Amino acid sequence: MSDFKKKGLTPKTENISDWYNDIVVLGDLADYSDVKGSMIIKPNGYAIWEKVQSYLDAKFKEGDIQNVYFPMLIPMSLLEKEKDHLEGFSPELAVVTHAGGEELSEPYALRPTSETIMYATFAKWIKSYRDLPLLVNQWANVVRWEKRTHPFLRTSEFLWQEGHTVHKTAEEAEAMTLKALEWYRSFFEEVFAISAYVGVKSESEKFAGADKTYTIELVMPDGKALQSATSHNLGQNFSKVFEIEYLSTENKKENPYQTSWGLSTRSIGGLILVHGDNAGLVIPPRAAPIQVVVLTFPDKDEANQTKINDYAQKVVDDLKSVGISAKLDADNDQSFGNRANKWELKGVPFRMEVGLKEIEKDEVGWTRRDTFEKGTLPVKDVAVEIPKVLEYIQGELLKKSAQIKADLTKEASDYESYKNILENERSFVRVFWCEDAECEKKVKQETKSTTRCLELENVDMKEDAKCFHCGNPASRKWLFGMSY
Amino acid sequence: MSDFKKKGLTPKTENISDWYNDIVVLGDLADYSDVKGSMIIKPNGYAIWEKVQSYLDAKFKEGDIQNVYFPMLIPMSLLEKEKDHLEGFSPELAVVTHAGGEELSEPYALRPTSETIMYATFAKWIKSYRDLPLLVNQWANVVRWEKRTHPFLRTSEFLWQEGHTVHKTAEEAEAMTLKALEWYRSFFEEVFAISAYVGVKSESEKFAGADKTYTIELVMPDGKALQSATSHNLGQNFSKVFEIEYLSTENKKENPYQTSWGLSTRSIGGLILVHGDNAGLVIPPRAAPIQVVVLTFPDKDEANQTKINDYAQKVVDDLKSVGISAKLDADNDQSFGNRANKWELKGVPFRMEVGLKEIEKDEVGWTRRDTFEKGTLPVKDVAVEIPKVLEYIQGELLKKSAQIKADLTKEASDYESYKNILENERSFVRVFWCEDAECEKKVKQETKSTTRCLELENVDMKEDAKCFHCGNPASRKWLFGMSY
Repeated sequence: MSDFKKKGLTPKTENISDWYNDIVVLGDLADYSDVKGSMIIKPNGYAIWEKVQSYLDAKFKEGDIQNVYFPMLIPMSLLEKEKDHLEGFSPELAVVTHAGGEELSEPYALRPTSETIMYATFAKWIKSYRDLPLLVNQWANVVRWEKRTHPFLRTSEFLWQEGHTVHKTAEEAEAMTLKALEWYRSFFEEVFAISAYVGVKSESEKFAGADKTYTIELVMPDGKALQSATSHNLGQNFSKVFEIEYLSTENKKENPYQTSWGLSTRSIGGLILVHGDNAGLVIPPRAAPIQVVVLTFPDKDEANQTKINDYAQKVVDDLKSVGISAKLDADNDQSFGNRANKWELKGVPFRMEVGLKEIEKDEVGWTRRDTFEKGTLPVKDVAVEIPKVLEYIQGELLKKSAQIKADLTKEASDYESYKNILENERSFVRVFWCEDAECEKKVKQETKSTTRCLELENVDMKEDAKCFHCGNPASRKWLFGMSY
Repeated sequence: MSDFKKKGLTPKTENISDWYNDIVVLGDLADYSDVKGSMIIKPNGYAIWEKVQSYLDAKFKEGDIQNVYFPMLIPMSLLEKEKDHLEGFSPELAVVTHAGGEELSEPYALRPTSETIMYATFAKWIKSYRDLPLLVNQWANVVRWEKRTHPFLRTSEFLWQEGHTVHKTAEEAEAMTLKALEWYRSFFEEVFAISAYVGVKSESEKFAGADKTYTIELVMPDGKALQSATSHNLGQNFSKVFEIEYLSTENKKENPYQTSWGLSTRSIGGLILVHGDNAGLVIPPRAAPIQVVVLTFPDKDEANQTKINDYAQKVVDDLKSVGISAKLDADNDQSFGNRANKWELKGVPFRMEVGLKEIEKDEVGWTRRDTFEKGTLPVKDVAVEIPKVLEYIQGELLKKSAQIKADLTKEASDYESYKNILENERSFVRVFWCEDAECEKKVKQETKSTTRCLELENVDMKEDAKCFHCGNPASRKWLFGMSY
């Protein structure tokens, strides 16, 4: 393993928060800007976002969701229409008061989310049952003015997708809400190699204006929760306020049922925290902008160096020929160690190495980023073996993440053991809870921990148990935890 | 041809401006919003933008341009750094003065373009010649507060890509500027089937802060010009102001040379205007979200209807199997005429028709959208023939656009004939011009026409001629015209 101190990287095992701030910059993912709480997403970070986009956008299109684009400025009067929604977002609004050299007669908010502006328009678009379902999504920037910010995890401006759908029946809306949730779950598993908790939010933690909020909760290595995507069943709340009505087949005016769901650049923060290690980022192969880097060993003899570089280029070409994103690093002016360090920091999942020794044996050396395991491979097998190796690494990272999730989830039967776990074991805690909002509030005040979700598999649970906190009857187990 | 009046569409040949406003809505491309001068891009319009993105993004990646994302809020102090740049954009700025419930100590402008915020950061990123060239692009929304707006053509918020590059030498920067210009030219030709004028802007029409601006000018059917993409050689103007410096191989501090280039959703306005006709939109096959629509004829006999629908579905499957974006319209409750009208309005380039008659003959009927030519095709040839037909239509539309461009470009030798052409023939005018800014200003004041560009092929022209306006010596022919 490499010399971390040399890299200016705080070891993750020593201080995960400092490590995170270091690696975001050293891993070339993002940079700080002159704008309070906003970040610059650098090429290495944006390329990961493009992987997110390409996976999810394909899912959306398979699901007949069509992309649209709505204005990012929202008239304040529109935002004020749904009371809960306004209350939820008003403390975080950024407001445009002047434009074109004049004061505006009505200020505009920068969208914190687009329910209001979209649904005012849906009311014009939807006239009859023939116009339903309406299924749209937009990839956009949103602004929520946050007091404490961290790159990716919480920034004043961030990128996301927001899906918005309108349906004839409550059942259809619920099915759509769950379908979007499943897209998110499969995305985290299949691309980011992260095993997530999937569940329902409590009444007090749900989205401002929703009937029900489903959530993807990731377990971070410090035991904290990262809410990483949400899918909302909005019921008829917005359709009533925004007067969305359709003429049914029975020629009656009805308010339709709606959903909205979103996943943001915050997900990349989860990726960094879950997989990274003391040597830097570890990007799972399917999320990696560069999957394999091929390094040449420096050689003082020019003819040898040319031979090495050509051989390495051939390896890169072989990898590219089977669709692998491969990069040659033949920058022999820099030491091999520095170059290896650099690619470790950036989290490239697989490194291959070429020197005279490898050429003589018709081999290529390799080092796995996730385990630092080393080995050699006959050069003729590169195109056949490496795709399998990358898929294997992808699977191993997912297994590791599932193990972390399991290890960092404890069960508690009473409040004392609950508090003990939070304090000493720093993990999620699964407990029977009475589902009363006042009880939830007290737990939060006393411990700063919150309900994370009711796991989908526990929704139908009907045990005869007692609440871990207040002792009142409780029938279902909920996940609680500290959150980012 | 169809009954246009029924559709609520002003004939294009009668009033192109009313036609444009009608078709944007009737063709389901965009809708008006409650936000002054902003539009909603509907699925049919956004899908065209996705074609733009997919073509250009692939070109950028081939050219080693990496995508990034910078904050959309720009501190006013940064915008004020480059004087020409600020002057150019300050009348159009939208300004955020409040956020998170407080008045900001320094207001932020919504980006009208990102030179300033990017280059302040480039100054931190670039240290040595090893960091060059720096080649980035972002797909983003920008805001320019416009007094008179039209969907796509001029909106307060629009979507675009903006490329920004930094180079060691002036030659490299000029080569990059021309490379981006060529991407735009090939995009308009190959995807939008539009033959464009490609040239250099005059000193007074160039970008605020650039040394030189290259432009793509489209000729609209009313003879007006639509500036549809620009590529700027920024020289060292910004690198000096923003103190971007690199240590050269000779260990000297140098200011690098920069370029920026952009293409926006405005391009879709050009597409609509160039190809549309009295029956609605005409989308070239390579830009079309739906390339072929297959319509069923209604049949009162249920068994027959099922037979027709199945046969039509088979045609759609055949088309999809060769990568064609095909859609079945078997909505037999609506009249065939209404459905045909709808797809004509939306500009689907090729329509296929299935009824009992076609099934008996093992055929499919078809209608070309661009010419309304009709015919039949053996059903077994669909997968082989239609891809060729679509490419043929693509080529024909490009030819037609080249013809319009040629027809709507006149030559004038003196000011009288120039004014005559503008007034009576409504076209571009190619004239010898002295290249003096004062002369240009007078022409603009007297006729409202402006220099469009010096065509690339005329840059080296060295004729011994006289300026069409002031009579002073002039060596090169320029394009003048009225603009959108």
